[in-house]
Amino acid sequence: MYNNKYFMKIALKEAELAFKEDEVPIGAVVVCNNTVIAKAHNQTELLTDVTAHAEILAITAAQEYLQNKILDKCTLYVTLEPCLMCAGALYWSRIGKVIFGAFDKKRGYSQFTEKALHPKTELETGVLEQEALTLLQDFFKNKRK
Amino acid sequence: MYNNKYFMKIALKEAELAFKEDEVPIGAVVVCNNTVIAKAHNQTELLTDVTAHAEILAITAAQEYLQNKILDKCTLYVTLEPCLMCAGALYWSRIGKVIFGAFDKKRGYSQFTEKALHPKTELETGVLEQEALTLLQDFFKNKRK
Repeated sequence: MYNNKYFMKIALKEAELAFKEDEVPIGAVVVCNNTVIAKAHNQTELLTDVTAHAEILAITAAQEYLQNKILDKCTLYVTLEPCLMCAGALYWSRIGKVIFGAFDKKRGYSQFTEKALHPKTELETGVLEQEALTLLQDFFKNKRK
Repeated sequence: MYNNKYFMKIALKEAELAFKEDEVPIGAVVVCNNTVIAKAHNQTELLTDVTAHAEILAITAAQEYLQNKILDKCTLYVTLEPCLMCAGALYWSRIGKVIFGAFDKKRGYSQFTEKALHPKTELETGVLEQEALTLLQDFFKNKRK
């Protein structure tokens, strides 16, 4: 029951919340021992803050919950590949594993360097990729109208 | 009077505050029309938050002050070269100019990619470099004792 799709669906629900709030629909959750300890979605518009990406908010909340800066026992699920800023934050947190849905061919960190994440951080990609992409495509299609 | 050294000295004062608080001594200020609109120093220990780098805190404060996510009329002064996380945040803010003191040969963004900052962001380096490095070296010398 507790598999990658299970947790990514929670991240997707967060992305849907962002969509409803007219924010770029990206969601993230941090999981530790099969328990969601943080969930967040993009809130850059609400907070007038370019750093308020889903991953940054989720990392900050997870650190607060654990009262620990180091998240090496945790997994971050995020619907879209992290940008350089978020990959850099994940590096500093030494997060155990990152699982993302779709690649971001424009601003995903892997477009710039494969070395942004911590060398000990495991990586898995493509989980519910199509669902994440569809949500983003719908969002930007509406924006262009 | 209002030159790069003037503003970098304010960033260095912030770095000294960090030093006194047992935080890695890095400071940053955001300047707009020769006015300091935000200043900050590293607070990762105090906040138990790896994202609480001087640059991130300064960007967030500047956005709050201007009520604008875009800082294209502003200059960020920071004592040490930004890491990938901070360079990524500066990208999203489309900041007008970044001026840093010393290069960070380990985690500075330019070790990974020259394309982390926004293509329109101007860059200047080496301002009060030695002062920034001395502070960092003293800090880590004390840590190893």
